[in-house]
Parts: sequence; C-alpha cells; structure tokens
Amino acid sequence: MTHEAGIPLGIRFKLLSDTPQDSAAQVVGDVVVGDYRDLDTLRAFARGCDVITFDHEHVPTEHLRALEADGIPVRPGPDALVHAQDKGVMRAKLDAIGVPCPRHRIVADPEDVAAFAAEGDGFPVVLKTVRGGYDGKGVWVVGSVEEAAEPFRAGVPVLAEEKVDFVRELAANVVRSPHGQAVAYPVVESRQVNGVCDTVVAPAPDLDETLALRAEEMALNIAKELGVVGHLAVELFQTRDGRVLVNELAMRPHNSGHWSQDGAITSQFANHVRAVLDLPLGDPRPRAKWTVMVNVLGGDYPDMYSAYLHCMARDPQLKIHMYGKDVKPGRKVGHVNTYGDDLDDVLERARHAAGYLRGTITE
Amino acid sequence: MTHEAGIPLGIRFKLLSDTPQDSAAQVVGDVVVGDYRDLDTLRAFARGCDVITFDHEHVPTEHLRALEADGIPVRPGPDALVHAQDKGVMRAKLDAIGVPCPRHRIVADPEDVAAFAAEGDGFPVVLKTVRGGYDGKGVWVVGSVEEAAEPFRAGVPVLAEEKVDFVRELAANVVRSPHGQAVAYPVVESRQVNGVCDTVVAPAPDLDETLALRAEEMALNIAKELGVVGHLAVELFQTRDGRVLVNELAMRPHNSGHWSQDGAITSQFANHVRAVLDLPLGDPRPRAKWTVMVNVLGGDYPDMYSAYLHCMARDPQLKIHMYGKDVKPGRKVGHVNTYGDDLDDVLERARHAAGYLRGTITE
Repeated sequence: MTHEAGIPLGIRFKLLSDTPQDSAAQVVGDVVVGDYRDLDTLRAFARGCDVITFDHEHVPTEHLRALEADGIPVRPGPDALVHAQDKGVMRAKLDAIGVPCPRHRIVADPEDVAAFAAEGDGFPVVLKTVRGGYDGKGVWVVGSVEEAAEPFRAGVPVLAEEKVDFVRELAANVVRSPHGQAVAYPVVESRQVNGVCDTVVAPAPDLDETLALRAEEMALNIAKELGVVGHLAVELFQTRDGRVLVNELAMRPHNSGHWSQDGAITSQFANHVRAVLDLPLGDPRPRAKWTVMVNVLGGDYPDMYSAYLHCMARDPQLKIHMYGKDVKPGRKVGHVNTYGDDLDDVLERARHAAGYLRGTITE
Repeated sequence: MTHEAGIPLGIRFKLLSDTPQDSAAQVVGDVVVGDYRDLDTLRAFARGCDVITFDHEHVPTEHLRALEADGIPVRPGPDALVHAQDKGVMRAKLDAIGVPCPRHRIVADPEDVAAFAAEGDGFPVVLKTVRGGYDGKGVWVVGSVEEAAEPFRAGVPVLAEEKVDFVRELAANVVRSPHGQAVAYPVVESRQVNGVCDTVVAPAPDLDETLALRAEEMALNIAKELGVVGHLAVELFQTRDGRVLVNELAMRPHNSGHWSQDGAITSQFANHVRAVLDLPLGDPRPRAKWTVMVNVLGGDYPDMYSAYLHCMARDPQLKIHMYGKDVKPGRKVGHVNTYGDDLDDVLERARHAAGYLRGTITE
C-alpha cells in the first residue's frame, strides 16, 4: 500500500522481502528475498538506496545503527524505532516525558506479578513480552499468580500493566518529517475483537473536542520527543473517568489509519512516503463526514475473489483493499472502507462487505 | 495508473512493454519487453493471461483477432477497438448508428480535398490519417489545395472533416462491462493548447443539463453499439448552435478522465479494470464540486523532483501524478489534480503547480 501511494510521485521502491509471496513482493518490481535479521543481507540490500523505511518494527535495532553508520538514512531511525520495538523502553520514555500510561513495571517472575497486582487493584493484570508481540500475540491477561507463569517461559523480559477499565480504544495518527513538520489525522475509534482490530471509525463518534485535541497533541508530542520520522500511530485507552492513556506505539502506516486511503485528503501511506523523503506533508483532514474501515479476516473459503461480485454489485461506493495473502482462518487478509454522511449506513455497508468476503455472511 | 488501481483488488498484471524504461514497466513487477506489432511476441506473452487489455490503441487489429482465436479474451475486443484505431471505420459506424459527427469523407488526393471543401463552407478543412495519430500528430488544418499535399505523403488513407466552429471541447467518459453494465462520468470540459490537452474541468462549467445528458447518453449508446468493454472516452465539440458532435474516440483510460483519480468515487482506472474483469462497476460520481486536471509537460529542467518541495508546501491538498518519463520539452510527463468548492481557486492551484513543475512559473 506504501508502494501504491508512491507510484503517483514516481518513487521507486526496492523491497527486502522474507519470501517472493509476501504482499508487497507481489506488486513491487524490484524485490530482494532475504532475512531482515541478517546484517550482511541488510547491508547488501541497502547499497544504492537513498533512504530505508519499514512496514514492520522487527528489524534489529543494532542492525539499523550499523546501516546508519554506513551512511544510509534510516527513517524512522533506530533511536526512535526502539520505542516501537521494546515496550519497556517505550514505557520508560513516555514516563520521562510525562505522557499518561497504564500503571506498569518490568516484572521478574510470577511472584513479582503478584506483588505488582497487590500494589494496585489486584488481578487481573496484563503481561506483555517487551519485544515481538502484535495483534494480541505476546500479550496475556492473567487472573492469578498461577496463570502468570506462561509469559516467562520464552525467557524474554516481561512488562506488567494494570488492566485499564476503558470505555473504548482510540488511536491518534500523526506523521512527522525530518525537518519537524507534522500533521495529525482526526482521532479514530478502534474496536477490537479477540485482541485484533476489527473496526475503525473516523473520526471517533461523540468524542469530546477537548479530549480529541489532547490526544492529537499527545501524539504530536510523542513524535517530536522520540524523534519519529514517518507515520506514528498512538493506540489509546479512553478511560471511564475521562482520561486517555497510551496503550501501544507503531512507527509505520497502521491499521488504525487505513481509513485514510479513501477517507482523508492525503492517506497515511502517502504522508509516510512524503515524510521519509522529507517532502512537505499533505493535508490529513477527512473528505467525508464518516469513514469506516473493517478488517477482512480469512474465513473458510480460500477464494475471496468470487465474493467481489456480490460486494461490488451491492455497494458501488465500497472500497476493497486486499493484500494478496493466502487465506487462513482469522488472518488479516484485507480491509474495506466505506464513507458517507450516515454513520449507521456506513458501518452496515463496511461490516456486510467484510463479513461477506470472510464468508460469515452468505445472504 | 491502471496497475495502481488494480493493487487494492489483488489484480496481478503482466506487462508487454516496448522498453524496460516505459512508465508502466517502472512499477509493474512482471514485465516482458517486446514489440506489440509482432504476433509471435504477443502470442508468447498472452499465454497464461486471463484477459488482455491495453493502454494504447496501436496493437494491430488482426493480431488481436488471432489472440481471440487462440482463446484469450481481449477487452476491448478487436471489433470494438478498430473504431478507435481507424478514423474511417469510426466515422462510418457513427454515421450508421445516427451519432452526430462533423461533415467528413475519405479523400483520395488534394483535388478531392478541394472538392470536399467546396461541398461545404470551403477551406480550412481538417485532414487526418485514418490510423496512428494522437495529440495533434497525424492531423492537419489546411487552408488551401496546396497545403493539402502533405497528409498524402505517408501513403495511408486520409479523412477530410469540416473545421467545426466550436465553443469548446467536451468529453463524455463511460465504462461498459462484458455483461452490459455501464456507468457514465460527468461530462467534462477539455481545454487544448497546440492540439494537446492542457486542462480538464469536471464537471464542465455552465453546461446545459439537457446537453450534458445528451452527451452522456450518446457515449453510452456508442459503447453499446460498438460493443466496447472497458473505458470509452468520447471527445466532443460543443458547437456555437448548441449541438455536440463527436470528434474522437479512445478505448482505454483517457487523459480527459484523469481527474477521476482524485475527484470521483471510483476512478476511470479502477472502473476499467473492473470492466475488463467483468466485475460490477463502481460509482462514477464526483466527490467534490469541482475537480481540475492540468497536464504537466516537460520543460527545460530535467529534474522535476525538486519542484515537489514548492508545490507540496504551497498546496497540501495538491495531487501530483508523475509518469516516470524522461523529461523532453512539450512531452506529457504527468498531471496534477486539485478539487474544491471554488472553481477559480481550484483552477489557479492546478495551473500553478503544473506550471511550476514544468518550469514556466518560478516564483
């Protein structure tokens, strides 16, 4: 999707891909298949690139530092990206710059988890491995000291967090360029199902203006303080007592910003490319009153293409974005966007299409 | 741009390109370099394709028939496409189905041109080679029998047409699918400079509703009668006495429809892909009150990239579409789209950006 956004600007991508079947490898012309964890591979790949960016956070921080030392601009740079790679580093930094977070602490073992729980309202407690988690992986909600054993088995540091009593989840998406220009997308509501983002509504319905502004300012401030270049998604909890707390950070175009492809004047992908190239940023404002994104998860039918017929005929305004992935049950294989003036209608259209593509609606 | 529109639907393109440097070859992954005039090349290329379409009209009609005979769906098919390839065939067909055209006749030599002129209002007369012309090439406006010699030198049939006293040029863009579904984009005004499209305004300002409807119906009717599959652009003259006459036909996404990338709910490229694949068509209606497209022509500066800084900073809503072509003076190398509620503002922004990218504005 970043390649797609780069085409109109004549931006040529070279892709380092795990396999020739990866989504991006299916559409980018210049593909190198290799392992991003191997420094020699990265160095060979980086030769001749003007700048390097990512569609995930998993490239080892020390490899990015090595590329920078070789003179290759890496955006976002390792000093920023580490905050999206390591939840321990992220929490420490957000504490230091005064950004409100759930109560948290690195914990050593199940007994330490029990102590952490006792310091607050007791169990349940959220445990996260500090590196490598996403979409609910690497995250446990534990109700007792016995249940707290599992996260420690991998032998990586574990972060304990209070289980926040939230009303809903929000996301504040911002983009920042190397010369410090920044833009903020409207704060969106993100609805999760089984720990995976299901629906995003832009802008977040019935969000108090002051709270929305505070969330945008918070995201812009985090981008500045962490030296982010490119897109930053700040996932937030809106608490019952009217605060916003930072849940997670992502430094790349993010699922909570996919609505912008069809709903904003400039999409998150276009602005990420512009930021990474230090070009002036585009207008992030919405083009419609409401835009809804619903993720398409893999279902029981491997062929989603035949579902296009129904979905496109039913809703000529529907925007389908499929990733070319093999369909596996529960895997994110695409998303749909709808927009319009009537939120109920926009939500219904997006949900119907995503459900039909998945195979859970067969009317 | 068609590839760009196919990405979200997971449509995989295989490209037959003249050179590895062609615009499309820079962004499509699967490229075969070869000559579209060579049937063996076409046949080898077509093997394994589900369907074939074009970004120009120059593939020989008989080769397309051969591919069809091989069982490869060609969309638009040769029986339709020939009307966009051969202006003589096109005029004969439009006459037969009762579509108003400028007065015209195939002419044999300069004396025949003089006779054609005398049958109407005399010189000037427009002469066109029946095949191979575009962007003013293959077209002559001749003021005398002496000037009429040139077009006959190539030894191809020549079509004579009255020089229409037009108020302005319009274009009616429609898309038709194999099962006969069709959509019509709003009729646009197309402003030419030196025979090359310069500016497109969507919808055409101050266009009488009845005339707009007549133009849309005419384009839909042509698409149906000619059996067009995919995008059809009907270039029109709006005459001083309130009629619309067909100037040219193009059967592919067309310059007069580029505004739709940022100005319509579904772009001409997305709808062309959907039609070619016999998928239901998307909504062609505009998303903004006014959308303006201005072509970017090559200027004296080979580096257009540095102009991005000024253009993007001046207008955060600007949409730049560059084709990755080598910059040659006067060559179409890209276009810009702007949209909004105030036509003067939208026009000024597009013209400024295109002029700055070309180098004719350096403020």
